[in-house]
Amino acid sequence: MRWILAHPRLDLTLATSAADAGSRVDSLYPALAPAVGDLRFVAPDVDQIIQSADVAVLAVPHTAALGIAPALLDGGLTVIDLSADFRLSDAAVYEHWYDTAHTEPELLAEAVYGLPELDRTRLPGARLVACPGCYPTAAALAVAPALRAGAWGGGRIVVDAKSGVTGAGRSPAPGTHYVAVNESLAPYKVGSHRHTPEMEQVFSSVAGSGVDVLFTPHLVPMSRGLLATVYIDTAPGVSPDVVLAAYQDAYSAEPLVDLCPAGVWPTTAQVRGSAKASVGLHIDERTNTLVAVCAIDNLGKGASSQGIQCLNAVLGYPETEGLESLGPVL
Amino acid sequence: MRWILAHPRLDLTLATSAADAGSRVDSLYPALAPAVGDLRFVAPDVDQIIQSADVAVLAVPHTAALGIAPALLDGGLTVIDLSADFRLSDAAVYEHWYDTAHTEPELLAEAVYGLPELDRTRLPGARLVACPGCYPTAAALAVAPALRAGAWGGGRIVVDAKSGVTGAGRSPAPGTHYVAVNESLAPYKVGSHRHTPEMEQVFSSVAGSGVDVLFTPHLVPMSRGLLATVYIDTAPGVSPDVVLAAYQDAYSAEPLVDLCPAGVWPTTAQVRGSAKASVGLHIDERTNTLVAVCAIDNLGKGASSQGIQCLNAVLGYPETEGLESLGPVL
Amino acid sequence: MRWILAHPRLDLTLATSAADAGSRVDSLYPALAPAVGDLRFVAPDVDQIIQSADVAVLAVPHTAALGIAPALLDGGLTVIDLSADFRLSDAAVYEHWYDTAHTEPELLAEAVYGLPELDRTRLPGARLVACPGCYPTAAALAVAPALRAGAWGGGRIVVDAKSGVTGAGRSPAPGTHYVAVNESLAPYKVGSHRHTPEMEQVFSSVAGSGVDVLFTPHLVPMSRGLLATVYIDTAPGVSPDVVLAAYQDAYSAEPLVDLCPAGVWPTTAQVRGSAKASVGLHIDERTNTLVAVCAIDNLGKGASSQGIQCLNAVLGYPETEGLESLGPVL
Amino acid sequence: MRWILAHPRLDLTLATSAADAGSRVDSLYPALAPAVGDLRFVAPDVDQIIQSADVAVLAVPHTAALGIAPALLDGGLTVIDLSADFRLSDAAVYEHWYDTAHTEPELLAEAVYGLPELDRTRLPGARLVACPGCYPTAAALAVAPALRAGAWGGGRIVVDAKSGVTGAGRSPAPGTHYVAVNESLAPYKVGSHRHTPEMEQVFSSVAGSGVDVLFTPHLVPMSRGLLATVYIDTAPGVSPDVVLAAYQDAYSAEPLVDLCPAGVWPTTAQVRGSAKASVGLHIDERTNTLVAVCAIDNLGKGASSQGIQCLNAVLGYPETEGLESLGPVL
Repeated sequence: MRWILAHPRLDLTLATSAADAGSRVDSLYPALAPAVGDLRFVAPDVDQIIQSADVAVLAVPHTAALGIAPALLDGGLTVIDLSADFRLSDAAVYEHWYDTAHTEPELLAEAVYGLPELDRTRLPGARLVACPGCYPTAAALAVAPALRAGAWGGGRIVVDAKSGVTGAGRSPAPGTHYVAVNESLAPYKVGSHRHTPEMEQVFSSVAGSGVDVLFTPHLVPMSRGLLATVYIDTAPGVSPDVVLAAYQDAYSAEPLVDLCPAGVWPTTAQVRGSAKASVGLHIDERTNTLVAVCAIDNLGKGASSQGIQCLNAVLGYPETEGLESLGPVL
Repeated sequence: MRWILAHPRLDLTLATSAADAGSRVDSLYPALAPAVGDLRFVAPDVDQIIQSADVAVLAVPHTAALGIAPALLDGGLTVIDLSADFRLSDAAVYEHWYDTAHTEPELLAEAVYGLPELDRTRLPGARLVACPGCYPTAAALAVAPALRAGAWGGGRIVVDAKSGVTGAGRSPAPGTHYVAVNESLAPYKVGSHRHTPEMEQVFSSVAGSGVDVLFTPHLVPMSRGLLATVYIDTAPGVSPDVVLAAYQDAYSAEPLVDLCPAGVWPTTAQVRGSAKASVGLHIDERTNTLVAVCAIDNLGKGASSQGIQCLNAVLGYPETEGLESLGPVL
Repeated sequence: MRWILAHPRLDLTLATSAADAGSRVDSLYPALAPAVGDLRFVAPDVDQIIQSADVAVLAVPHTAALGIAPALLDGGLTVIDLSADFRLSDAAVYEHWYDTAHTEPELLAEAVYGLPELDRTRLPGARLVACPGCYPTAAALAVAPALRAGAWGGGRIVVDAKSGVTGAGRSPAPGTHYVAVNESLAPYKVGSHRHTPEMEQVFSSVAGSGVDVLFTPHLVPMSRGLLATVYIDTAPGVSPDVVLAAYQDAYSAEPLVDLCPAGVWPTTAQVRGSAKASVGLHIDERTNTLVAVCAIDNLGKGASSQGIQCLNAVLGYPETEGLESLGPVL
Repeated sequence: MRWILAHPRLDLTLATSAADAGSRVDSLYPALAPAVGDLRFVAPDVDQIIQSADVAVLAVPHTAALGIAPALLDGGLTVIDLSADFRLSDAAVYEHWYDTAHTEPELLAEAVYGLPELDRTRLPGARLVACPGCYPTAAALAVAPALRAGAWGGGRIVVDAKSGVTGAGRSPAPGTHYVAVNESLAPYKVGSHRHTPEMEQVFSSVAGSGVDVLFTPHLVPMSRGLLATVYIDTAPGVSPDVVLAAYQDAYSAEPLVDLCPAGVWPTTAQVRGSAKASVGLHIDERTNTLVAVCAIDNLGKGASSQGIQCLNAVLGYPETEGLESLGPVL
């Protein structure tokens, strides 16, 4: 909602929430006043959404988007889906990792994966955009130029990623209690996190051949921010200069991706509250490994600002429109 | 700089820093890219400032503004001073609490104290604005309507305030080391903090008679945010309704002050990154005490956004111009 | 459990928990291994407790102790109650503030309030000890010597206290979610917190006349630690030396209360993980106010170590037995 | 000092500090009172150390131990060195990575590397113990059983580690300021950290052949705790059962290493303030990778408690003597 309210061409006409229906938005999110006016959350109702809007942004759990997107599309809306339901092009892979049926396989072919820095060609005019997961966004931005440039030597790619607690959602749970998170660092779902097949799909697509990914997420005692440290074996004879040039080519004209100078590393603080990604590199010639790091705000480039970036591309607006508002430096 | 860059009518033409001279601003503050362009910090030089700008915002330690403001004013600039040098109207009080000579007493009469919600009449066209300290801003917004309404029964007013670590400045010191701050809560300078006489000046001015203040600041393990909890003895027979009405009258039309509903209390999270203050009240009839709480972002309403708010008033712009950019909700 | 396991004369024979029944204690609290052995939580059962132990420590919500303590006492056990059920000597006051019936008023006369530094005379041999709340413990240690010495000039006493999140219990709730707490400071239950009458009871008892208390608790973004800043009007003509001497007399021989030197203030970090309280003073002659600050670990002196300290006194052991284990410095 | 004071057979007879000479230890570290008595820091003086103690524990920067250890050994003391000066058996490797001359190469042969769980045979009676770095301790405990069991398939080993801020020392610096660390996650010295050759030395020794390590440390917004996530290619045909059995064999009798059950992962909170390590495993058959995770308290098993553990072994005491004091659960 923050990004929509700050956008010069978008209007927030409806905000739905089963849990908060009836509450004023600004009573729950005072920082949105006065821009949000006297808007109140309403219980989700497909007909009302269709009558109220031209675009629906879905920030729902997986399977919920399967349930609602078809009707919204039938109603003529553009759907920007932040859930996992349309990210994996192969319904069987979805069914394996998410352990549930994919009820709309025919929409998978139409859905456009929304990571513009990798491929923005199919976004203009798209009806259904599947926005990437937060971890795949960071991991893909970290390694895509190397994969494209043929710097990958084969072998599984390790993604060791670390996320703030907003990545775990708003629901109170023992694992998100302040006391459980504070002063603790914890890996979870090692080798079994559902973002693994999404990374494999994206990496394979960019590399032009199948890539296996080993993914280890960690929970970090901070609210926002996500950092992916990715390790790839480099191909024999790959020169550091060639790798660096591939990243410069890929990102020098990208307004929302910063490439750090040599010896400088991205931090999550740097991108906090913003729509940006920051990428840093080390080519380790001792071990023939490329270490590529990407920091994003998991709620920005890892979720909502990426949704708006995609929507801008869909609607033909400049891609960064509404996304350059200056967040706090700290 | 963030507020200036986001302001539709202001241009950031020069950024001075003795410590960071020569560095690109965006290398130190990546969140300001690309708005800040390729601006670099330069060492402070009065002539260059005069030639580069119409307005100078001074974010310097006390005594430094005494040294530079006269020349800037002579050079025709408007000066928005965030230091303590022109806040206290009585040079002798300054000299007592700051333990140094006040070398520009004649400017004290001209300097306008910049807390618009209390008094904005002298701001339009002012040459020199003395922006309040962070603690006095919060404390004054908490109690001014009660003092004006005659709800104060006499007796010293207790200000128990709590601030995040940005209030202690950027210089590394044992007391600002992460490990010293984290998981600790610490009072400091109890009864001797230099914001005490500033509160007494403002409170007395509003109340129309001398007010003694006992002020206890505390350091809280967080980066940003300041909350003042103020205790005032109520006058005999003061009705809660009258007090509440005084606050509603004072703040209902103020765009940057929110008054919390009964039973709801301000939090620093609510105003994080914003230019706003949030005020909450409890009239304790058991003990004839008014508890008034105000939360601000110490770097926003407690410092830089208040400077811009004052500058807007000086220049005849809408007071909130450039200050309504939506910061992160979290 | 940590304090019991470290105690040279106590054995932990039974650990009850409705929620965790069946789980190994060390699976939930790895830090207790190997001392806790293979003990498992069991569902609470009065008969089993009576057969398993000589002493029961009750760490239960209010009203739950009312339900179980009588049977345990009948079974011959000594009961150390950390709940609020036996703290207030007047059942009517309990019923007013807790809004529930007090079903065991006759036990109130027998229950001994367990704040040894204020009064340890009734602890030896006591059957039922009502351990103080965390906030009253800190507030009482802050002001008792002044009240005893006649330094109080009358007038309500303000207790402005700040607590880490463990004070809010282990249950996940929106207000204890990491993201809600982190980087936020929030007052709550201003003027209505249930520890208010307990402070009034203790303060009045020490002062020898009725004391009104205005109490404002705040939630601080840290896990452990509680700091109470207390403001009392001083009696006319009270000399700072007399006040200081009263504190020195009260605490110089107390092993678990440290009195800070002039100009030094207690911090919660100082007492983290320990059984201690730290007290600091400022006599503000400008405003005739005594500012007394006390820092405790809310889970130590504010709860469990105080329970063990009381139990030591009940059983005739040295009061600090088992409580001097050295916690981490940080 | 905490561990020494809690140790039943050790006396703390002298505490040296150039920076804090003259200060009472308990004024700087209140948590050590009253155990530390009225001990004051003194400026370091070799003669005084030799006359005051049988054992010296050196917690000094690298090169400082080179300067002082020989004289202490000549004076008849046992030296437990927490610095890097005697960890690397090859002086040339030290000189390459630390970019300074190794002035005592003859002592390298005598120095015993102090990681008892890997090799404790040379500790009894040793004169000079080189305690491992914090990162190598965690990484080595994570992978040693796999290396010993022949589960490593060759290829560089990736160590992705994350540390709290105490790892960066007590000196105030821009990078350890609360505001720089809070809400930020930052990699540093990627591929160039000086613990890299130490890991290679230890891993190679255990594996029986040369191992290359790629090491990426990260700074995490917490005070204490270190977690190493290690990725090793498994040898063809290695069965998960064999790997698991190797870890069970290695650690089931180790009192200071806990092996997590399948699906449970170590967290730094679990070992906070303790002398323990916690290890968890995932054998990823999809990618032929072993993910081994180890959490330690960087100030405990990563530094001081490991020094005491080694000292116990040197002196013939039970290795865990004085190390089982129960730290806070949180």
